[in-house]
Amino acid sequence: MSELLSKKEKLKEILKKLHAGENVEELKKKAKELLASISPMEIPLIEQELMQEGIDVEEIARMCDLHVELFREAVARKAEAAPEGHPLHTLYKENEEITKDAEKLALYAKAMDKEENMERIKELAKELRKIGFTHYDREETLIFPYLERRGITAVPSTLWRKHDEIRIKLRQLLQFIEKGLKERAKEKAMEVASLLIDMVFRENNILYPTLRALLTEGEWVAIKQQEGEFGFYKVKPKEWKSNAKPVHPYEIYAEITQEQLQQLPEEIKMIMKETKPDRKKIEREGDIKLDVGYLLPQEINEIFRNIPFGITFIDSDDRVRFFSGHRIFRRTASVVGRPVQLCHPPKSVHIVEKILKAFKEGSRDKADFWIKMGDRFVYILYIPIRDKNGNYMGTLEIEQDITELKKLEGEKRILDWK
Amino acid sequence: MSELLSKKEKLKEILKKLHAGENVEELKKKAKELLASISPMEIPLIEQELMQEGIDVEEIARMCDLHVELFREAVARKAEAAPEGHPLHTLYKENEEITKDAEKLALYAKAMDKEENMERIKELAKELRKIGFTHYDREETLIFPYLERRGITAVPSTLWRKHDEIRIKLRQLLQFIEKGLKERAKEKAMEVASLLIDMVFRENNILYPTLRALLTEGEWVAIKQQEGEFGFYKVKPKEWKSNAKPVHPYEIYAEITQEQLQQLPEEIKMIMKETKPDRKKIEREGDIKLDVGYLLPQEINEIFRNIPFGITFIDSDDRVRFFSGHRIFRRTASVVGRPVQLCHPPKSVHIVEKILKAFKEGSRDKADFWIKMGDRFVYILYIPIRDKNGNYMGTLEIEQDITELKKLEGEKRILDWK
Repeated sequence: MSELLSKKEKLKEILKKLHAGENVEELKKKAKELLASISPMEIPLIEQELMQEGIDVEEIARMCDLHVELFREAVARKAEAAPEGHPLHTLYKENEEITKDAEKLALYAKAMDKEENMERIKELAKELRKIGFTHYDREETLIFPYLERRGITAVPSTLWRKHDEIRIKLRQLLQFIEKGLKERAKEKAMEVASLLIDMVFRENNILYPTLRALLTEGEWVAIKQQEGEFGFYKVKPKEWKSNAKPVHPYEIYAEITQEQLQQLPEEIKMIMKETKPDRKKIEREGDIKLDVGYLLPQEINEIFRNIPFGITFIDSDDRVRFFSGHRIFRRTASVVGRPVQLCHPPKSVHIVEKILKAFKEGSRDKADFWIKMGDRFVYILYIPIRDKNGNYMGTLEIEQDITELKKLEGEKRILDWK
Repeated sequence: MSELLSKKEKLKEILKKLHAGENVEELKKKAKELLASISPMEIPLIEQELMQEGIDVEEIARMCDLHVELFREAVARKAEAAPEGHPLHTLYKENEEITKDAEKLALYAKAMDKEENMERIKELAKELRKIGFTHYDREETLIFPYLERRGITAVPSTLWRKHDEIRIKLRQLLQFIEKGLKERAKEKAMEVASLLIDMVFRENNILYPTLRALLTEGEWVAIKQQEGEFGFYKVKPKEWKSNAKPVHPYEIYAEITQEQLQQLPEEIKMIMKETKPDRKKIEREGDIKLDVGYLLPQEINEIFRNIPFGITFIDSDDRVRFFSGHRIFRRTASVVGRPVQLCHPPKSVHIVEKILKAFKEGSRDKADFWIKMGDRFVYILYIPIRDKNGNYMGTLEIEQDITELKKLEGEKRILDWK
């Protein structure tokens, strides 16, 4: 405790100088030794001390940014495990932002007797929820498969479970604030702040070093290509170029080398003996390669046959080429090859022609209709099928009985399934 | 008119004897000559005469069945152009039933001052509407393509237009009855009866002889295989067996021979000079043959990419094999090959396992969920994909934004398109 106190005194000194406008670079040099001895985990404690001494919360909160500026050097040592723009660098950078905001959250929570801090917590909690669908989601969806493929499944699964805990508690926090439950909100905010910082530590010390030891450049290239889908938490990654060919998880059949094993964090080394890499070959004999993934012709046929709506495709020559699915309007094999103009009652053919013309010109992207058939409500949708360059390849008709869909109310989530 | 009167007298005689219970076979023998000289078109006129003489309408209506019994021999001469169970035989047989009911309709309409006849017309009109989606629909969908392929498109198109007229007028008739518009209902009923009989004549004298002259046994086999999809008007066709391989319209590249040309009705012969057979080859290089029709791999890819919902397929080993479409939940290529159990938040994995188990055992055929995402209403459906023998091949997830679908009201039909 005396050590903490002396650290606090020194930190207080530095913070005051920063606040007075002293040059950050100068200060960093002076404080180098001190900074090396302080772990980010101690910061909340020191802050609490400062607060108890009557320093204004807002003052301290504003200093949070300066903390990070001060600690950047220490944190950067980790981020610089990879060049700027590299997905690993971005992950570390986001964790800096997360740490900063988690600290702010704790600070506001501690000073919740001030009315305005409730509003601040609310805004911040909304911000923090974005971590769930950027940083965490990216790890869960994009990065974990590379570890799973190497047999490391327990660590991703534990992290995911803990991510979800944070997601839930942030939601609860917002609910407590909404209901004006001040004490419970305070408690929850403190809990979330602590879980967030705990997660930063787990990731920085276990997950990221593991990724660094195992993932090849090509794998990072694939991650880089896809990470934009999810977005980032308060970070805008720079470009990062590599000549390596992107490698997806299902393309890996790698052994973990002795050298890699040595570089792994102790926690991972321990479990590596029990892991079994996933060597399943994904592409099969006869597989058709699609944009994302593979299907056998028989799978394609049965997917189309089992889907709960009818689909019919006419090609760019206006010929019916294919139909399948659960149909509402009867259709028989005799229609294959038939010009679509001959498939409609003569009086509506001119509309069919107009729709096709609009699709071919690119002036329309759908034509939809809805009709009642007895007690059923039927939705009929025509969409042009275009290739990635926008070239017209044909038109798809989808017919769907939406009677039951229209009646759905409320929610039924996966955990409600019986 | 005097000839008609004398026919009427003779017919009246026969009908009275029939009504008195005389043997049908005996009567038929006696009336053979008379029957040969009466065309079904004359029957309504004769009936009208009988009515004017005060014979009860119900009496005459009940005799309608006997008419057909009497005229069967004459009509059978046409039906027997093909063996029982043959699709052509069935078409002729349905036209007998249609004639009978059209006559009844005219009879009831003529005697509409009797209150109960309004109800009878209503019931009969409802029955007659079935012609539209059995007999006519079968011709339009299943049979016309065989003529179109040979370049005969004008005749099918004219017939279809006239079928649609009948469909519309039958709907109008029912609306007039619903609204109690007696005079207009009467007029419409007479009109419909006359159009129905007119259509029987066109079909029996032009369409069917043309089919008989042109279609090969294999084509009839294909029609026979599919005709059950549509059903029949008051006829239950027997089995008809043939060893010929079914031939679909898109498999025909036939020339019309001189011999066939000779057999065609005059109306068709006249237009044959201007027709050009449709020789488009339907199966292309690289086509994948599906249950009904063909698609190129690129078409399959683009269809999946353009559909307005997200789909994801996991195979029978629970591996994600493919996803596409307009997604609501983000998914990246990293998921391909990933065991589905690892794709879900750990806390809901046990439900995923339960759903898959139920699908594999065959105890469930869907699992659906619906959630709100901001102002969007999202429907998530899991269905097992099974082959035709019921073997589990995998599970398909469909995610659909149904916000707009839920708001649809009323109808928007193809003719409303702008």
